[in-house]
Amino acid sequence: MPRTGRRPGPSTTRATLLEAARRRFAEGGYDGTSLRAIAADAGVDPAVAVHFFGSKEALFRAAVGWPFDPAVVAERLAGVGADELGPAMTRLFLDFWDDPATGASLSAMLRSAMTHEASAALLRAFVGQQLFGRLGHLVGGPGAALRIEMAAGQMIGVAVLRYILRVEPIASASTEELVDWLGPALSRYLRAPS
Amino acid sequence: MPRTGRRPGPSTTRATLLEAARRRFAEGGYDGTSLRAIAADAGVDPAVAVHFFGSKEALFRAAVGWPFDPAVVAERLAGVGADELGPAMTRLFLDFWDDPATGASLSAMLRSAMTHEASAALLRAFVGQQLFGRLGHLVGGPGAALRIEMAAGQMIGVAVLRYILRVEPIASASTEELVDWLGPALSRYLRAPS
Repeated sequence: MPRTGRRPGPSTTRATLLEAARRRFAEGGYDGTSLRAIAADAGVDPAVAVHFFGSKEALFRAAVGWPFDPAVVAERLAGVGADELGPAMTRLFLDFWDDPATGASLSAMLRSAMTHEASAALLRAFVGQQLFGRLGHLVGGPGAALRIEMAAGQMIGVAVLRYILRVEPIASASTEELVDWLGPALSRYLRAPS
Repeated sequence: MPRTGRRPGPSTTRATLLEAARRRFAEGGYDGTSLRAIAADAGVDPAVAVHFFGSKEALFRAAVGWPFDPAVVAERLAGVGADELGPAMTRLFLDFWDDPATGASLSAMLRSAMTHEASAALLRAFVGQQLFGRLGHLVGGPGAALRIEMAAGQMIGVAVLRYILRVEPIASASTEELVDWLGPALSRYLRAPS
């Protein structure tokens, strides 16, 4: 690549910030990483990182490749009754996979995490901070983290078969059919054991 | 690579047979593929293929990278009552992932199928022929194939989180804890709806 001597363009700066963020978050987790440190690694002012990504949380999501804001999902699920939480989550999850843009991002993120340890470390940090941090209070009760992961496992496995491996008949099953089966399964995990 | 002019050794013949089998099974499925055609592609007598792999079914498993014989699993589950089928399957599945040899094969197979379309096609053919063919009669009832895939999805997703991404707390949860949660979930899928 020829060096032009010009200042790096916006796309280079963005990519450099993402690369620094991936390394920092994978090593130090979310709480142990500052926007300032990432910006310093990328050789820019912290204000530049804020300009590109808006917040440390949004930069974290961009670094992981997570295509939506878990806070928005948590908000949409906040008013949902305990028995409807499973079906509502199933619907939201399938919507994200059915949408070509978010579906492609979810698929790429999962593939990357399953084949590169650095991406896996990043996703682990994200799950710990965002999934439990944002959705944990919707679930609650003893063993909530394990129950959330069991529910997440159910959804991830169905996504692998339906959207990535495209195994029949689950690849062609209707959303309603899946919600009927998966909804109660998820509700069982998410309901606090009495 | 220098050509020595000697006949190909056993490891070369085995690899050539596996390569031919992967191509043939992915294109034609299990029923549409003969051991004879695979052997011809590999330039050997069908008896050589039998010598190396034992049967077309075993060659199929080796081509997919599937580390155990579904027929043996079906046999072990044959005497299990309907309500115990979920816990028994969960236990068997976790055993295969906990065993370093079979666990590594399962992980490699899943990674490969998720990142290479040819491997995905091969796994689709395998699931259709072996998973439904061998385990379908244990389940039965309307929508059995979809219910088997929902159960498989639950197990695959948990394996992704526990064994591949190693997300906590599910990575360190005990087998019993997982059986307690997953067993009833699987039984619900596998029981014929009344």
